[in-house]
Amino acid sequence: MQAFVFDGQSAQVKTVPKPTSATEALIRVHLAGICTTDREILKGYGQFRGTLGHEFVGTVEACPDPGWEGRRVVGEINCPCRSCTPCQNGDSIHCPSRQVLGIHDKDGAMAEYCLLPVANLHEVPETLSDRQAVFAEPLAAAVAILQRIPIPPSQTVAVIGDGKLGLLVAQVLRLNGAHVLLIGRHPEKWTRMGNHAIEGMKPEEWPTGQKVDRVVECSGSPEGLRFALDLVRPRGKIIMKSTVHASYILDFSRLALHEISLEGSRCGPFEPALRLMSRGLIMVESLIDDVFALEQARDALAQAMKPGALKILLDTKNH
Amino acid sequence: MQAFVFDGQSAQVKTVPKPTSATEALIRVHLAGICTTDREILKGYGQFRGTLGHEFVGTVEACPDPGWEGRRVVGEINCPCRSCTPCQNGDSIHCPSRQVLGIHDKDGAMAEYCLLPVANLHEVPETLSDRQAVFAEPLAAAVAILQRIPIPPSQTVAVIGDGKLGLLVAQVLRLNGAHVLLIGRHPEKWTRMGNHAIEGMKPEEWPTGQKVDRVVECSGSPEGLRFALDLVRPRGKIIMKSTVHASYILDFSRLALHEISLEGSRCGPFEPALRLMSRGLIMVESLIDDVFALEQARDALAQAMKPGALKILLDTKNH
Repeated sequence: MQAFVFDGQSAQVKTVPKPTSATEALIRVHLAGICTTDREILKGYGQFRGTLGHEFVGTVEACPDPGWEGRRVVGEINCPCRSCTPCQNGDSIHCPSRQVLGIHDKDGAMAEYCLLPVANLHEVPETLSDRQAVFAEPLAAAVAILQRIPIPPSQTVAVIGDGKLGLLVAQVLRLNGAHVLLIGRHPEKWTRMGNHAIEGMKPEEWPTGQKVDRVVECSGSPEGLRFALDLVRPRGKIIMKSTVHASYILDFSRLALHEISLEGSRCGPFEPALRLMSRGLIMVESLIDDVFALEQARDALAQAMKPGALKILLDTKNH
Repeated sequence: MQAFVFDGQSAQVKTVPKPTSATEALIRVHLAGICTTDREILKGYGQFRGTLGHEFVGTVEACPDPGWEGRRVVGEINCPCRSCTPCQNGDSIHCPSRQVLGIHDKDGAMAEYCLLPVANLHEVPETLSDRQAVFAEPLAAAVAILQRIPIPPSQTVAVIGDGKLGLLVAQVLRLNGAHVLLIGRHPEKWTRMGNHAIEGMKPEEWPTGQKVDRVVECSGSPEGLRFALDLVRPRGKIIMKSTVHASYILDFSRLALHEISLEGSRCGPFEPALRLMSRGLIMVESLIDDVFALEQARDALAQAMKPGALKILLDTKNH
């Protein structure tokens, strides 16, 4: 089969053996999404080698549980050992010996086929298109915020960074009526959702001295975190969503002085993400910039890494 | 009266007018404590000018409410406006126009007399000596952790830094049965409490890979925060107690990846601190290195700033 493989130096579309497994589901991938984490991997993050891709939708072709065969699925990316202390405490996404699809020690979904444990699968409702379902993983990551940090409807939330993640986070956090302000430099992105445009502002437009209850840092830049510290009120919370590697220089005495919390947040639950898309509450298709064939994966990656790019998908079906 | 005054360049014992107020209590100071924050002020923190000192015990000499006269007191250091939004929301320690005793816009307690609003006063139980009561403010800051972050008894907590604050924090957090480990370089400090010695360890003795639920950063150093990030388990919390100004260079993607929380914590409640000392549950007198007369305040400060020094007190009574 064809797969988009990173060998530690560069990523190339290659012919590789079709995977087989006696214990995992074999999934025929339809669409795969390119994420900022893929760029980080190409820069050396986690020393990953293998097939890229952790955002996908596909159909189960073979499975130890035959009831799954023929079903359209998305899949959670963490494959934990299910026996260590974190796993037994329900923290399996932090299993120290986990494999992570297309990120750590497990070939990913930018290929004709991938493998995942049955426990990771979620059936996609019929009402959702492939172009929607492929957003299940990044949308779950946005939903993850609410799993850890309550955001009451009366609060004001600033979301820093109007990239893919910021646009999903802003849509999720406004669902309960909270006042959400997206801070970014690309007003044309805030209005992509048409009638559901996101209220946005450029950093320089922020009213001096105005403070908010919660700030979600989605820019992945040191400037973003410094701005977050300026915006958050005393005893407020900053949620760190980005896994972009960057060394930050900050005066951390401000955390103690203003009793601010910095909370890291990573992967989230798929079922709420699928429900939100099914009910039409989150606009995801409007975030798609382009769809490339798997053979054009290198061009697709180059496009995805351009400043201001939103979601680039790989079509892996036509092989 | 005599007072230890910082003029922006240096701190000197000077003769200054005895303060008077129609609205605040006039307190005859008995003892004042030197804190790391005083060192920060001398380095320029907050551009404070005036009499230093925010840890004290004294006797009310004159008061708008005469019922307080003659009573022995300690005092909360934040003097909020009591009318702004934070004040009305119960967050008065974050009042943006607050004065802070000996720290911001209000003369402090390293003097024969100081002034504080009646609302800030707490009577000292008879059973406590002055040498104990003067620890009310720093002990309240240790207690503040539990006001914000629950620490269940089954958890393991690492306290980084075996200075004055770390020794108080370790004593407070072990009260509920939690396993508390103090990380520092001065084993002779951990045993100052005699039978109540604190379980301690040098950083290099930490078992590789061992993780804890909570880490309290009391060292105020970038190395301390980096070590905290190494020690804390996924989904654990790091509590930042230090207001030492230092620029930290850190890779913050670890916060998101491991879903770690960094929580700032500052001033705390006095009544629990007084109760803990009254009940003999916290050993504070053993933390006293020396007591200097107010006239020797410069020598006292030099002594307090030496590496490894614990609490230095100023005796302000004999004038």
